[in-house]
Amino acid sequence: MHTELNDFLFSLLDIVGTFAFAISGAQAAKERELDLFGLFIISFLTACGGGIIRDICLGITPPVGISQWLYLALPAFASLVFLVFQSYISKLSYPVLLFDALGLSMFAVAGAQKSLFLGQNYGVAIVLGVLSAIGGGILRDILLGRVPVVFRKEVYGSAALIGSGIVVLFHYFDLNSTSGAWLAMITCFCIRYFSIKNKWNLPRI
Amino acid sequence: MHTELNDFLFSLLDIVGTFAFAISGAQAAKERELDLFGLFIISFLTACGGGIIRDICLGITPPVGISQWLYLALPAFASLVFLVFQSYISKLSYPVLLFDALGLSMFAVAGAQKSLFLGQNYGVAIVLGVLSAIGGGILRDILLGRVPVVFRKEVYGSAALIGSGIVVLFHYFDLNSTSGAWLAMITCFCIRYFSIKNKWNLPRI
Amino acid sequence: MHTELNDFLFSLLDIVGTFAFAISGAQAAKERELDLFGLFIISFLTACGGGIIRDICLGITPPVGISQWLYLALPAFASLVFLVFQSYISKLSYPVLLFDALGLSMFAVAGAQKSLFLGQNYGVAIVLGVLSAIGGGILRDILLGRVPVVFRKEVYGSAALIGSGIVVLFHYFDLNSTSGAWLAMITCFCIRYFSIKNKWNLPRI
Repeated sequence: MHTELNDFLFSLLDIVGTFAFAISGAQAAKERELDLFGLFIISFLTACGGGIIRDICLGITPPVGISQWLYLALPAFASLVFLVFQSYISKLSYPVLLFDALGLSMFAVAGAQKSLFLGQNYGVAIVLGVLSAIGGGILRDILLGRVPVVFRKEVYGSAALIGSGIVVLFHYFDLNSTSGAWLAMITCFCIRYFSIKNKWNLPRI
Repeated sequence: MHTELNDFLFSLLDIVGTFAFAISGAQAAKERELDLFGLFIISFLTACGGGIIRDICLGITPPVGISQWLYLALPAFASLVFLVFQSYISKLSYPVLLFDALGLSMFAVAGAQKSLFLGQNYGVAIVLGVLSAIGGGILRDILLGRVPVVFRKEVYGSAALIGSGIVVLFHYFDLNSTSGAWLAMITCFCIRYFSIKNKWNLPRI
Repeated sequence: MHTELNDFLFSLLDIVGTFAFAISGAQAAKERELDLFGLFIISFLTACGGGIIRDICLGITPPVGISQWLYLALPAFASLVFLVFQSYISKLSYPVLLFDALGLSMFAVAGAQKSLFLGQNYGVAIVLGVLSAIGGGILRDILLGRVPVVFRKEVYGSAALIGSGIVVLFHYFDLNSTSGAWLAMITCFCIRYFSIKNKWNLPRI
């Protein structure tokens, strides 16, 4: 595949994922009757919180989620879209879940790749891949005063774990990293997709 | 205005603001029936948490809120003052709110200025100005198990946003930064003051 | 005492403490009916969260809690042990509390020592000693939606404060740091031990 096309697709997925996370933040904020300021902050932290935690752990300051306009503009735009179309969006829960699954896959892979690119070891790559993917949702839930949904039900964090793991495996066996990224993303997405469809849950304790 | 006087006033406002935030932390801790240790930690994190988050995002380690004695001593002193005078302080809710508004204005401006001084872009300056101002209160509320009040009611975070925005505008148009800081602080304070007085709220969703 | 034996004992205490904290995380996760993924994450953050916060404040990135396999492996192992032996562990609340007290003492001392070793001032050493010791438990409680137990009852954080303080005093008076570390650990452990035994509480407000 041409590198340009590849980069373009990655950027697109990043935007789609960030937007979907921002919408999920706005939706959760609405349920708690926050005001406009709260809506935007929750939307922003849901979308960018995972990446901010990842960058702080990697010593990248200021974190990309703060320093790039795109990551401020996307949650602002998503909040606006949500406010205007909220009656539609509530009906679209299924598509929103799918976009959210795209974001999850994208962030898990990007977090693991960024860590490896900076020369970090495999443990760091896996942990930060998972944290990138689930950190925003955890922040959202903590700020809204509920136990993070990722700890309680469905197959979500473990899909991110498998995605990050595949990226690391491709690196370990010195295989093509672009193929690894795509395979990881598709696997993570499919696990998440089928877990929604079939209402899979991890065993509780 | 003489620079010395100016610096003195800024330091004074910083102390007054930190002290007011620390008192608000102690007050909130009391409502939850924490013990003495909890009271001090909540007081400290309410006063210094915003600055600690700001410094970590800017790569300043250890954060000033930890490395300078003043920022440890002020919450300790505020906790003591609160314990001795709590029956008075409960009656003084209005003055405490005013001092808190001073702190909000001071931290928003100082956070934006520090970011610009370190060569960060305008987005970073605005985000970290707001985070400096509201981060401590958010930490306080999370630690006490309630949805941060800044997301739910009154005009608080948005006052900080406007304060940070004015600092950035003055920088953008290359105007005198000291005048900008004062204008930003006064504007932020007035918005907060009138929002308390007239019980303004941002629209809910 | 031989340095090798000393280092060995410190490493052993570090492992025992991390393991005990991980068990306490798993136990708390069970009470909230988390799934397997949630159990592991809470166990990991309880065990390593304090050290991660400490390292981020010291500018050590990635934090040791993420970059060393041991600190990923211990919570994974503790989660497994907990799942297999949970009916036994529930009965063993007293030994678990004792091991937890070992962890508390170890982390308070190690946090203060690491800060001093990096040339930080005494305030930083004390704050980060305490934060290393109690940060994991605070994260655990926030993620499980309850007000951190360390703020509410028993003598826990203040034991860590005294432990860190002793390390700093030995440094200030230029006394032997190894003796200081042992004295600090034993003092912290004893305070914690007797506070459990005699049901001590700090005064509430």
